[in-house]
Amino acid sequence: MAFSIYDASIPMMVRMLHNLSSILDKAAAHAAEKGIDPATMIEARLAPDMFNLARQVQSAADAAKATAARLSGETPPSHPDTETNFDELKGRIAKVIAYVEGFTPEQINASEGRSVTIPTRGEPHVFKTGGDYLTQFAIPNFFFHVTTAYGLLRQQGVEIGKMTYLAGI
Amino acid sequence: MAFSIYDASIPMMVRMLHNLSSILDKAAAHAAEKGIDPATMIEARLAPDMFNLARQVQSAADAAKATAARLSGETPPSHPDTETNFDELKGRIAKVIAYVEGFTPEQINASEGRSVTIPTRGEPHVFKTGGDYLTQFAIPNFFFHVTTAYGLLRQQGVEIGKMTYLAGI
Repeated sequence: MAFSIYDASIPMMVRMLHNLSSILDKAAAHAAEKGIDPATMIEARLAPDMFNLARQVQSAADAAKATAARLSGETPPSHPDTETNFDELKGRIAKVIAYVEGFTPEQINASEGRSVTIPTRGEPHVFKTGGDYLTQFAIPNFFFHVTTAYGLLRQQGVEIGKMTYLAGI
Repeated sequence: MAFSIYDASIPMMVRMLHNLSSILDKAAAHAAEKGIDPATMIEARLAPDMFNLARQVQSAADAAKATAARLSGETPPSHPDTETNFDELKGRIAKVIAYVEGFTPEQINASEGRSVTIPTRGEPHVFKTGGDYLTQFAIPNFFFHVTTAYGLLRQQGVEIGKMTYLAGI
């Protein structure tokens, strides 16, 4: 099978979502071990006007969900941002993994021949093909939130490393 | 043309390297405006045992360079980590953009049918195909360093936003 839009999106995002879940496990264990209120980590931010950890995780999950939905032309389920602890955030990730794993390569790869439109603060932005949407927006946006979640937990002292990010280890 | 390994690697990384260069421009302007020694930003880290900004930028450049080299089977040029200011870091990025833009889609896509091996601290890791290497390692690793560079400069007060990261704006 030739490499496809599906290969560059769903399996990669599923893998990274599992890794993000492992990062949250390590954060929860760190909080328990050090007697830290988990809320302090869930509220942590890299800068005062950036999203906190909860919103970074929710945004990573939403980014994967939107990628599958937009590439397939489906309407994604709504997931309100109500999570307030590590278990709930992991649940949010698990819901999205189940959702995106429900798509077939054929559904996703149909985007190769059509445009994808995303809302912006101004005019909606039109990508000419699913591949343009994936590489110019969806992948960079997804990794932004996964890496920022990693970075802010790393800054909070959680013992995670590059291999946690890359492979959940 | 069908979506390919090339589409999911070289143009996306080139675009993000240009955006990273724009981020450095904004950091340099911020330092000049606020009378901040640029060295304090170049040495900044999210955590004491993480790479500083210079190493994050060098690592992002190296990640793109290695991606093109490994997917094509070429040996990449060596770029020693000697950069100590924003202009030099931008020069490092520019060298890598020129290098990776020198590859044709055919050279990169030949990796679809062969394995890619990367060194690790233990045994070398073998990815069965170029696509596996790209999605399980190269893309996540590249975005890790770009996003971390963004995050630490954002934390240093540089006026950058998601659109700087996504589009250099």
